[in-house]
Amino acid sequence: MKNTLKNKPALSFWLLTLMLVLAGTDCLSQADTQRRPNFIIIFADDLGYGDLGVYGHPTIKTPHLDQMAAEGQKWTNFYVGASVCTPSRAALLTGRLPIRSGMCSDKHRVLFPDSHHGLPASEITLAEQLKSGGYKTACIGKWHLGHHQEYLPTNHGFDYYFGIPYSNDMDFIAKNKNGDYWKNEAAIKTEDFNVPLIRNTEIIERPANQNTITKRYAEEAVSFIKENKDQPFFIYLAHNLPHIPLFASEKFLGTSKRGLYGDVVEEIDHGVGQIMATLRAEGLDKNTIVVFTSDNGPWLPFKTHGGSAGLLRAGKGSTWEGGMREPCIFWSPGKIKPAVISDLGSTMDFFTTFSAMAGLPVPDDRIMDGIDLSATLVSKEKGPRQSILYYRGTSIYAARLGDYKAHFITQGVYGMFGEKEVHDPPILYNLSHDPSEQYNIADKHPEIIQQINELVRQHKSNLIKGKDQLADRN
Amino acid sequence: MKNTLKNKPALSFWLLTLMLVLAGTDCLSQADTQRRPNFIIIFADDLGYGDLGVYGHPTIKTPHLDQMAAEGQKWTNFYVGASVCTPSRAALLTGRLPIRSGMCSDKHRVLFPDSHHGLPASEITLAEQLKSGGYKTACIGKWHLGHHQEYLPTNHGFDYYFGIPYSNDMDFIAKNKNGDYWKNEAAIKTEDFNVPLIRNTEIIERPANQNTITKRYAEEAVSFIKENKDQPFFIYLAHNLPHIPLFASEKFLGTSKRGLYGDVVEEIDHGVGQIMATLRAEGLDKNTIVVFTSDNGPWLPFKTHGGSAGLLRAGKGSTWEGGMREPCIFWSPGKIKPAVISDLGSTMDFFTTFSAMAGLPVPDDRIMDGIDLSATLVSKEKGPRQSILYYRGTSIYAARLGDYKAHFITQGVYGMFGEKEVHDPPILYNLSHDPSEQYNIADKHPEIIQQINELVRQHKSNLIKGKDQLADRN
Repeated sequence: MKNTLKNKPALSFWLLTLMLVLAGTDCLSQADTQRRPNFIIIFADDLGYGDLGVYGHPTIKTPHLDQMAAEGQKWTNFYVGASVCTPSRAALLTGRLPIRSGMCSDKHRVLFPDSHHGLPASEITLAEQLKSGGYKTACIGKWHLGHHQEYLPTNHGFDYYFGIPYSNDMDFIAKNKNGDYWKNEAAIKTEDFNVPLIRNTEIIERPANQNTITKRYAEEAVSFIKENKDQPFFIYLAHNLPHIPLFASEKFLGTSKRGLYGDVVEEIDHGVGQIMATLRAEGLDKNTIVVFTSDNGPWLPFKTHGGSAGLLRAGKGSTWEGGMREPCIFWSPGKIKPAVISDLGSTMDFFTTFSAMAGLPVPDDRIMDGIDLSATLVSKEKGPRQSILYYRGTSIYAARLGDYKAHFITQGVYGMFGEKEVHDPPILYNLSHDPSEQYNIADKHPEIIQQINELVRQHKSNLIKGKDQLADRN
Repeated sequence: MKNTLKNKPALSFWLLTLMLVLAGTDCLSQADTQRRPNFIIIFADDLGYGDLGVYGHPTIKTPHLDQMAAEGQKWTNFYVGASVCTPSRAALLTGRLPIRSGMCSDKHRVLFPDSHHGLPASEITLAEQLKSGGYKTACIGKWHLGHHQEYLPTNHGFDYYFGIPYSNDMDFIAKNKNGDYWKNEAAIKTEDFNVPLIRNTEIIERPANQNTITKRYAEEAVSFIKENKDQPFFIYLAHNLPHIPLFASEKFLGTSKRGLYGDVVEEIDHGVGQIMATLRAEGLDKNTIVVFTSDNGPWLPFKTHGGSAGLLRAGKGSTWEGGMREPCIFWSPGKIKPAVISDLGSTMDFFTTFSAMAGLPVPDDRIMDGIDLSATLVSKEKGPRQSILYYRGTSIYAARLGDYKAHFITQGVYGMFGEKEVHDPPILYNLSHDPSEQYNIADKHPEIIQQINELVRQHKSNLIKGKDQLADRN
C-alpha cells in the first residue's frame, strides 16, 4: 500500500513526463522548422566598393540599399573569394576557396560557353546544405558554375532556377561591329548577345531580352517569396548586371545622373526595395536575413560603363583591394543589430553563418574556409575572422592578417595597373590606416610579414587542390 | 443723433482695429524673433570627401554624422570657394568669391603669423548679417581671416570668440627637429607649435594645448547654446583639426582603427553628437539648422596623417574635385527633409540661404555669389545652383556648368599631381558620369565648352578684384 501509493504517483509522473517530452519534441521540432530564418542573398556583378550611396557614390541613388544599411549592418571590410566571376561564385556557394573545388585556373579566368565542366557534384552548396534543413531553394539570375545540364543549379540543391547561366557579354554574335561598338551606348543591343535564358533546365528565351532581365529577376524573387512563405526558404538572386553590356528597363533607362551604369544600379536597388516591401507585407521581414554584395570589383577598362572602387586601389581581376573588397549589407529588422562593422568578413562566411543561424551542422568531411559571423550580426560581438587570402588563379598573390596585407605578387589586368612583379620580401600595407594601399611599411614590420608568411605556410600545408574545372574548352 | 449713433460704433471699430493691429504687430514681431531658426555651422579643416562613414570611409567611425545624414540631407556635389584655408573661409563667411574681398593671392596661399592684413571691414560677414536680425553670434575655433585685433571675429560681427586664430601648424618652434619629425607620431608635441588661444581679443593660453582643443571647442559650443537658448543664435564652430599636426584628447587617442587621423575625426564626430544631444535636450533641434562641412580637401603629402578624397581626384590645393568638393550634411528634424541631394551647392550659399530662412534681406550694394538653397532643404525642390568656379589664387582654373567641368589650367601642388598645364581648348569631364575626372570628352561637346566659356566671360565682365590682403608679410 505504501508502495502502491508511492508507485501510483510515480507512474503518473513518468507518463506525464513522457507525454510532455513527446509533445515537447513535436512542438520543438515544429517550432524549430518554423523558427528557421529565411535567407536571401542578392549578388550584383562587377559592382564596385564605391558604387552605392551609402558607400560614397555621389550620383548613383540607392535609397533602398541605404535604408538596408541604416536599419542593418554595413560591412566595410568584406571580401569575395576571387576577383573574377566563376571562382567568386564557387567560393560563395561552397564556403570554400575555389582552389579546393577546382573552380579557378591559370589557363582561363572563368567558364565560357564552350567550357566542358563546372562545379563538381562532390561539392556541397549552401542550397544543398539548407535543403537538408527543410528549406525551399531558388537560384535566380547568373549561375556561371557550369551550363551543361549536370552542372545547373537544379543539380546543385536548388528547387528552382531562372536565369542566364553565364556572363551577359558571352555568345557575342555581332562580331562585325567595329571597335567603337562599346563606346556608343545606343549601338549596344541585347540581340547582339545570344545568351540563353533558362527556367530550371530548359532554355525559354534566346537571346535573352536583357533590357528587362533585372526587372524580371526581382519579380521572380518576389513571386518565390509569396509562394513559399509558409516554409523556410533560401533565394540566391544573382543579377547579371551591372556587368557589361549594360541594359535597363524602360522605367529606368536615362533616369540616373550617373548615366546608363547608374540606371542599372538604380534598377537593382529598386528590386531590393520590392523584396524588402514584400517581406514586410508578408510579415517575413523579422525572420528573413537579406544580404547584398557583389562578386568582384568594377571592370575599369569599360570606363563609365564600369563602376568605381571608391577609395580602394584598382578593380576587377586584381588582388588590390578594389578587386576583392565589396559593399556588403546585412538586413533583418530586430534580428540584425544596426551598426557599421569594420571587422573582416567573406562571402565564404555565408555558408557557415547561415548554417549556424538555421541550426544545421557544417560538413565535417572537408576543409571549410567560412567562419560563423552570426554573433557579430545578432549581438555586434567582435568579428571572429582574422585573415583573408587573395588568390589569383591558383596562386596566392597576397594575404591579410588583421589590419595588415602583404603582397607577394602584384600584377596588372586588362592592360591596367602595371606588369607582374614578385615581391620578396613582400610589400606591406596597414589597410585600416591606409585603405588605398599607398604606403609600403614592410621595413617597419618584419614580425608581421613573418606572421603572414606563417599563415600562408599553414594554409598550404594541408591544401589539396581540386582538379581544374575551367581548363577544358572546345 | 444719427451721426452719433453711426460714429460710435465706427470709433469703437477703429479703436479696436488699432489695438488689434498694435497688439498684432507686437505679437508678430515677438513671434518673428522667436521663430527665427538658429544656425550652427560645423567646419572641419582639411577633411576629405571620403573621410566620413556615410561618405564611404571603411575605418573612420562617424555615427553622429551618419545619423545627421540619415535624418537630414547629405549633399554630394557641395563645394568650397577655394581649395585652401584662408580664401575658403572668407568665401563661407561673406557669401562671395574671395577674389572680390582680396582674400586670395598669387603670392601667398593663406595668411601667416607675420601677415599684415585680414578680411576688410567693408565685407559683411554672415555674423554681421544675422546680428542685424537679432542673433547672438559666436565664432569658436580657427579663424584665419586676420589675427591682428581689427580683423578678429569680434570685429566682424561675432559677440564671442574662442579659438586659435590661424592654422595649428603655424608658429613652429622646434625647427631643430629633423626631417623624420612628421613621420613619428610620438615625436609631435603640442608644445612645438606656439599658436595662441584667444578668448574674444585676449590671448589666454600659448602655446594652446592642442591635445584638448577639439574637445574644448565642442564644449564651448554646447555652453553657448545653453546660455543663449532664449534668443536666436548663430555658432560658427571651425575646428582646427584634422589639419596637421594631429592631436586628440586622452579619451580618443589610440582608439580609432584609422590611427591618429581617425582618432581626431571621431572626436570631432563625438562633439557633433554632443551638440545634437544638447539641441534635443533643450528642445531646440526642430528650430536649429546644423550644417557640417570642411574647408578644403585632404592634405595628401602627409600620407596617413592626411585624409582621403574618396573616389575624387587629388586633394587640397588643387582645382581637381578632391581639392574643392566636400562632405556636406544639413540637419534639422522636421524642417530639413531627409534626402541625398546631388544638386550643386557651395559654402557661399550659407549666407544667402540662412538669410532667407531668417527673413533677412541679402545686401544689395555688392555682388553676392551665394544662392538660396532653402527650397531644396525644406521641400526637396530641384537645386537652383547651375555653376561652380574653381579659382586658384586669383585665376580661374576650371568651371563647372551642370554636369560638366572644363579645366583651363591644371597644376600640381605640394610636389604632387603634375606640372602646370594650360589647356586650350580646355579638357572636359562629365562629373556626374565620371566623378574621378578620368575621361576627357572635350571633342564630343564643343557646345558645352562654348557655354562654359561664356559663363566665365560673363563672370569676368563685371568682376572687381579686391585689394590683395594676403600679399603683405614681414
